[in-house]
Amino acid sequence: MTIDNAPGAPLDAAALDQLFLTARTHNKWRDIPVSDDLLRQVAELSKWGPTSANASPARFVFVRSPEAKAKLGPLLSEGNRAKSLAAPATVIVAYDTEFPDKLPKLFPHVDARPWFAGNPALIEETGVRNSSLQGAYFILAARALGLDTGAMSGFDKAGVDAAFFPEGKVKSNFLINIGYGDPAGLFERLPRLDFDEYARID
Amino acid sequence: MTIDNAPGAPLDAAALDQLFLTARTHNKWRDIPVSDDLLRQVAELSKWGPTSANASPARFVFVRSPEAKAKLGPLLSEGNRAKSLAAPATVIVAYDTEFPDKLPKLFPHVDARPWFAGNPALIEETGVRNSSLQGAYFILAARALGLDTGAMSGFDKAGVDAAFFPEGKVKSNFLINIGYGDPAGLFERLPRLDFDEYARID
Repeated sequence: MTIDNAPGAPLDAAALDQLFLTARTHNKWRDIPVSDDLLRQVAELSKWGPTSANASPARFVFVRSPEAKAKLGPLLSEGNRAKSLAAPATVIVAYDTEFPDKLPKLFPHVDARPWFAGNPALIEETGVRNSSLQGAYFILAARALGLDTGAMSGFDKAGVDAAFFPEGKVKSNFLINIGYGDPAGLFERLPRLDFDEYARID
Repeated sequence: MTIDNAPGAPLDAAALDQLFLTARTHNKWRDIPVSDDLLRQVAELSKWGPTSANASPARFVFVRSPEAKAKLGPLLSEGNRAKSLAAPATVIVAYDTEFPDKLPKLFPHVDARPWFAGNPALIEETGVRNSSLQGAYFILAARALGLDTGAMSGFDKAGVDAAFFPEGKVKSNFLINIGYGDPAGLFERLPRLDFDEYARID
């Protein structure tokens, strides 16, 4: 993206709009098919975002089929249920508590497994933080590929874990509806904090 | 980005490269100035990413001045110290444990403060998850504006909190170096998991 002696250039205004400035959290979905292949492309794009020691602890379940939706539905908070069941897919963003087992593949130059062995608090902290990062990369990868999203944290986590990860090794973090959003279902855009309310330059 | 009856279009290949596919975590920085205004633009772009109830709990400190770097340096793990002190800025991504106080501005249609009142565990969970999302948005906003980043979790959190948030209300989450990366400092790119190792379609 850059020539050797010039700093990087920004994306054009339309791309910044699509990623951040006019992108919205959607609640209603257009009747346009979203293929399994496109969902896979979103995940495969997002996986290149950085994680701690490249550990990539996030695990993703695309809830697509009537059977999977029937399992998920009762576990959603009431305000999230109808819009999720109507979405082309709901993605469970979770993390694998056994992610250190993949470090020999992901971080091959050092044996990083001892950093985590016998330290469930560090495994949880790393899993939660980095699967959250990976969920955010997923949201922006979806937008980059022309899709819309709606992220949610209102659901029965223990119930989702039991229903979708019965071996007890993977823990849900949050959910993301994905599809082509219908602007008719948008609420008014909510404000954000002013720079001085959330940041300072020391 | 879309016309009324067509699904959204993907960004072009160069943009996908800049955001995800060829973007790298950097360890060495080119001697190109990064203005305070550009850092502010990154934050102001990233703030439009979604958070739970729009609560936007992340707080960002740009560690820029020699004095601020002198405070941060001893609190970094040894492997993170030299590259961070050489970066144009290191961003402390933190979260405000009093973020519910901003909900009347951010989520004005409902009084959401009672959802969090007296529930420090929910405040912490929401703060950690959403400030992680916001840190990921920041990384991708930086790339979208042509900058490079290097995220890190190896530092003395209690020490950073005491040095930069002495009132005890803001908690550090992770750090991001930012600037124009020098490819000469890159390691070989690390692999990622295959789709079937981290995802499934139910």
